[in-house]
Amino acid sequence: MEPVLIFDTTLRDGAQGENISFSPEDKIKVAQRLDDMGIHYIEGGWPGSNPAADRFFELARSTEFVTARITAFGSTRRQGIPAEEDANLKALVACGSPAITIFGKTWDLHVVDIMGNTLSENLAMIEESVAFLKGHGREVLYDAEHFFDGYRANPEYAVKTLSAALSGGADIIVLCDTNGGTLPHEVTEILETVKAALDAETGRDIRMGIHAHNDCSVAVANSIAAVQAGAIMVQGTINGYGERCGNTDLTSVIPILNLKLKRPCVSAENLKKLKPLSRFVSETSNMIPLASRPFVGKSAFAHKGGVHVSAVMKEPLSYEHIDPEDVGNRRRVLVSDQAGRSNIEYKAKEMGIDLDAPEFDSKRIVNEIKMLEQEGYQYEVADGSFKVLMDKFLLQYEPVFDLESFRVTIEKDKDRPCTSHAIVKVNVGGVSEITAAEGHGPVSALDNALRKALSRFYKELETMHLVDFKVRVMDGRGGTEAKVRVLIESRDGDDIWSTIGVSEDIIEASFEALADSFQYKLAKKK
Amino acid sequence: MEPVLIFDTTLRDGAQGENISFSPEDKIKVAQRLDDMGIHYIEGGWPGSNPAADRFFELARSTEFVTARITAFGSTRRQGIPAEEDANLKALVACGSPAITIFGKTWDLHVVDIMGNTLSENLAMIEESVAFLKGHGREVLYDAEHFFDGYRANPEYAVKTLSAALSGGADIIVLCDTNGGTLPHEVTEILETVKAALDAETGRDIRMGIHAHNDCSVAVANSIAAVQAGAIMVQGTINGYGERCGNTDLTSVIPILNLKLKRPCVSAENLKKLKPLSRFVSETSNMIPLASRPFVGKSAFAHKGGVHVSAVMKEPLSYEHIDPEDVGNRRRVLVSDQAGRSNIEYKAKEMGIDLDAPEFDSKRIVNEIKMLEQEGYQYEVADGSFKVLMDKFLLQYEPVFDLESFRVTIEKDKDRPCTSHAIVKVNVGGVSEITAAEGHGPVSALDNALRKALSRFYKELETMHLVDFKVRVMDGRGGTEAKVRVLIESRDGDDIWSTIGVSEDIIEASFEALADSFQYKLAKKK
Repeated sequence: MEPVLIFDTTLRDGAQGENISFSPEDKIKVAQRLDDMGIHYIEGGWPGSNPAADRFFELARSTEFVTARITAFGSTRRQGIPAEEDANLKALVACGSPAITIFGKTWDLHVVDIMGNTLSENLAMIEESVAFLKGHGREVLYDAEHFFDGYRANPEYAVKTLSAALSGGADIIVLCDTNGGTLPHEVTEILETVKAALDAETGRDIRMGIHAHNDCSVAVANSIAAVQAGAIMVQGTINGYGERCGNTDLTSVIPILNLKLKRPCVSAENLKKLKPLSRFVSETSNMIPLASRPFVGKSAFAHKGGVHVSAVMKEPLSYEHIDPEDVGNRRRVLVSDQAGRSNIEYKAKEMGIDLDAPEFDSKRIVNEIKMLEQEGYQYEVADGSFKVLMDKFLLQYEPVFDLESFRVTIEKDKDRPCTSHAIVKVNVGGVSEITAAEGHGPVSALDNALRKALSRFYKELETMHLVDFKVRVMDGRGGTEAKVRVLIESRDGDDIWSTIGVSEDIIEASFEALADSFQYKLAKKK
Repeated sequence: MEPVLIFDTTLRDGAQGENISFSPEDKIKVAQRLDDMGIHYIEGGWPGSNPAADRFFELARSTEFVTARITAFGSTRRQGIPAEEDANLKALVACGSPAITIFGKTWDLHVVDIMGNTLSENLAMIEESVAFLKGHGREVLYDAEHFFDGYRANPEYAVKTLSAALSGGADIIVLCDTNGGTLPHEVTEILETVKAALDAETGRDIRMGIHAHNDCSVAVANSIAAVQAGAIMVQGTINGYGERCGNTDLTSVIPILNLKLKRPCVSAENLKKLKPLSRFVSETSNMIPLASRPFVGKSAFAHKGGVHVSAVMKEPLSYEHIDPEDVGNRRRVLVSDQAGRSNIEYKAKEMGIDLDAPEFDSKRIVNEIKMLEQEGYQYEVADGSFKVLMDKFLLQYEPVFDLESFRVTIEKDKDRPCTSHAIVKVNVGGVSEITAAEGHGPVSALDNALRKALSRFYKELETMHLVDFKVRVMDGRGGTEAKVRVLIESRDGDDIWSTIGVSEDIIEASFEALADSFQYKLAKKK
C-alpha cells in the first residue's frame, strides 16, 4: 500500500489562527524542523499575498530540505482572463517552489451567489489554471474548497470540478471540508463514491487527499476515515493551529497512522521527535502549549489516582494506550490529594531520589506531603517546589538564601496611577543584602527586589525568567479572607519548572512561590 | 427512536483533570446549571472516597432538580466478601442518589495480573454488586472499564462481564474506552457485535452507553459512532475536562446530535444555553476558556478580514457550518467586531435598562463597553459592576463615595507571620474620613478599612458581606507583570451580586471590585 503523505500547512492555514503569526525567519526554522521530522510537503504561504510570504520562498530557495517538498498556495485564475495573464498564477510560478497547491470552487452557492460567476467559467478556470502550472513543470495539488458542502448541494457539479482539475493534469485531488461541518461517516461515504467515479472516468487510480477543519471536534477522525476510504494524503497543522477551531492536528494523525493503523508515514526514529516539534511550534508561534493535547501534551500520560499509578507500575499497558517514549513524551505521576504513597515514591524516583535510602524517613515524608496538600499545596502542578521540598528532607540540604524580611507598599491617590514598592532583606552565607525595587503591582515589585538582592551573589539569575503566574482562591467563600494559592512557572533555556505558595496573604503566597523558584534554579548547578 | 441520554461526569471524572478541583458548593452550582440545560444524568462523585464527595450528596438531597437524575459513582464489591458487607457499596446506597453507576473489570489482564483475582470471582463481584444496588431500588448503570481493550484481548470473557451485569439487573450497560486508545471504526464494529450478542442472549433490546476518552483526539467521533451503532447514552464532560487528554466533550456532542444527526437530546431553547454553560464551568473550575473550542469557543465563529467576511455577510452558510446563535455563541469579525451591540443591549434589557431611552447615548455606551472588554472586563460575569457602569451613564448618577487615597503595607519578618495594614481616605458628600485596618492579607485589610470608613455614613453596610473572591491572571505569559482580573461576589440577604476589577496591580484591581460592590449595595436603597 502506498505510504500516506503528510502535508503540513502550519505556515499557511495554521497562521490564519487567532493570535498566530510567524516571521519569514520563524517560518524557515519551523520548515527545517518539519523536514527533519520527515514530513513530505510543507506549504509555506500564498506568494503575492504579502511581502512576508514572498520573503519566505526567497529564503526557502536557498535552504536545503531532505525529505520535504516546499509548496506554494494560491487560487485559480480570475474570471474572464487567460491563465498566463493572471498575476496570482504568475507569482506562484515565480516563487520557484517544486510543488504548488491551488484551490478552486466546488459549491454552486459560492460560484453563482457569492462570486457572481457561471458554472462553466468556473470549470474553465480550474482546468486552465492547473494546466498552466503543469506547463511550468510543477507538481500540482488541487484543493477542492467546500467540497463536502458542495457535494451535498449538487453532487454532479462537484465531481465535474474535480474532473476539470484532472483534465488540467492535477497530480493529487484534495477534498477540503472548509467549514468543518462534515462528520466521519459522510467523509467515508462521499470520498469512496467520488474516488470510484473518478477512477472509472479516467481508468486510473486517482491519488486523493483530505483537508479537514475541527469545527465539530472530528477533524482527526475525518482524516483517518479518509485514509481508510482510500486517500493517500492528509493535510493538517502542528498542534491543530488554524482559524476558528483549527485544522486537523498532525500531532495526532501521525502517531495514529504509525502506531494504530500500521500505515507508517514517518520513521519510528522521527516519530520520537513529535513532542519536541509540537513544543517548538508552540514556542515559535508564542502560544501556550495545551497540556491536554493528545500524544504530545504535558498531561497526555499523567496519572493521578493512587490505584492507577500502582497498576501502571505493574503494567504500563493497563492505563496507557501507547508507550509515551514512542512520540517523545513521558509518563508523569501527579502527586495529588488522592495520591497514595506509590505516587510520591514514583515522583521522587523520577527526580533521582530513593525514598528508601537511609537518610529518608519515607513514612514521615509521605505524611508531611499529605498534610501540606490538606493546606492547599498541589505538588502535581509544582514540580519545582516538590524538588525543593525533597531537598529539604535531605540531611545535607542548605538553602541558597534566607529571607530576613520584606516590606511591600501599594499607594493609590485619586486620579493618579497605583504604585508598588518592595524592600527585601536576604542573607546569603552570613552576608546580608537589603534592596528595594518598584514593579507593576506588588508581586512584580517583590520579584524585582528579590532578584536584585540575589544577583549580587548569583550571576546565573540573568538567564532565568518567569513565564506564567496563576492565582487560585481556594474556597472563596471566606470572601477576601480566603486562602490563596499562587503558581509560578519559570524558565531557563529549555528547563521549565513550576513552584507554589499558599497563604491567606496573596503577597506571602507569591513570595513563597518566588523563593522556591529561585531556590530551585540556584540549587540546580550544585 | 429513543432520544439519546446525556450523562455528565464533569463533577466526577472531569474533576480528575490536572488543575481542576471543585468545592462541594461549586459542584451544586454546576449541577443546577446542568439541570437547567436539560442534561439527563449528573454524576456527582464517589461517596466515601473523601468528605467533599459526601458533602455534595448531602447538599444534593436538599436541592431540587427538574430533569436531571443525580448519580453516585463507585466500584464493584471487594474480592471475597458479600456485597452487603462492602463499605463502598453501603456508602453508595447511603448517599441517597436515585441512580448509581458502578464500574467493574472487563480486561483479563486487569483481573488476573493487576488485581490478582480470578476470572470467575470477578464475574460474581459484578453480578452481586449490581443485584445488591437493584435490591435497594436504585437505577443502576454498569460502567465496563477498559471494555475495548478487554474485548480485543479476550472477546468471550469481555462479553461475559456484561452478561453478569445484566443478570444482576443493570439498567444500562456502558462501554468505557478507559485508556482512550480506540478508533471510531473499532467502536462501530465492537459495539454493534456486542449489542447483537446481548440482545440475542436476553431477547431484549439492551440499552447501551459509551464513555470515551480523548487520547487519540477522537472521543467525540467515538461517541457519535457509538450512537450510530445503537448506543442510547453518551457520557462526557463540559469542555471535555478530564484526566490526561480529557473525556468526550459534551459541548460538541450535544449540538452534533441536535443539529447534525437530528437526534435532539435537549430542547432548541436549552441548546442556546450551551456557550454560557461552558463559560460558567470554566470560570467555576478557574480554567482559562479555550478560544478554539468547537461550537462554544470565542474563536469558533471568528472570521479574519477579507474574502471570508464579505462572503459571510452575503450568506452565512458560505463559511459557517451552523448558526452560532443556535448554541448561544456569536459570529466575530476579527477586524471590526459587529456583534457587540446587540449583546450589550440584551444585557442592559435584562437589568430593566432600555438603551434607547432618551437619557442614554447608546452608541457611546456600546463603544465604551467594547473598549472596557478589550481591556479584560467581562460584564457577563459581573452584573453588579455592569449595573454601576450603567448608572454612571445616567444623568442623575451620583457616587455614594469618592476615594481620596489608600495605602496598603505588607510586612514579613523571618519566623514571624505576615501582616497587612490598609489606610483608606474617602469623601462622602464633602466630608472626608480616613481610617486604618488590619486584615488577613492586603485585600482583606483594604476591605476592612473601606467598610470602616463608609459605615460612619452608611449603617446598612453591616448586613452585607463578601461571599466569594476569584482572581484570574490574563495572559500570564508576562510573568508577574501580567494583567489581573478580580471578581468579587457579595451578598445581602437574598440579593447576590458580582463585581469586577482589572489592573496590572492586583491590589488596585481588588479595590475596584470592592468599590463597585459597596457602590452597588448603597445605590440600591436610593
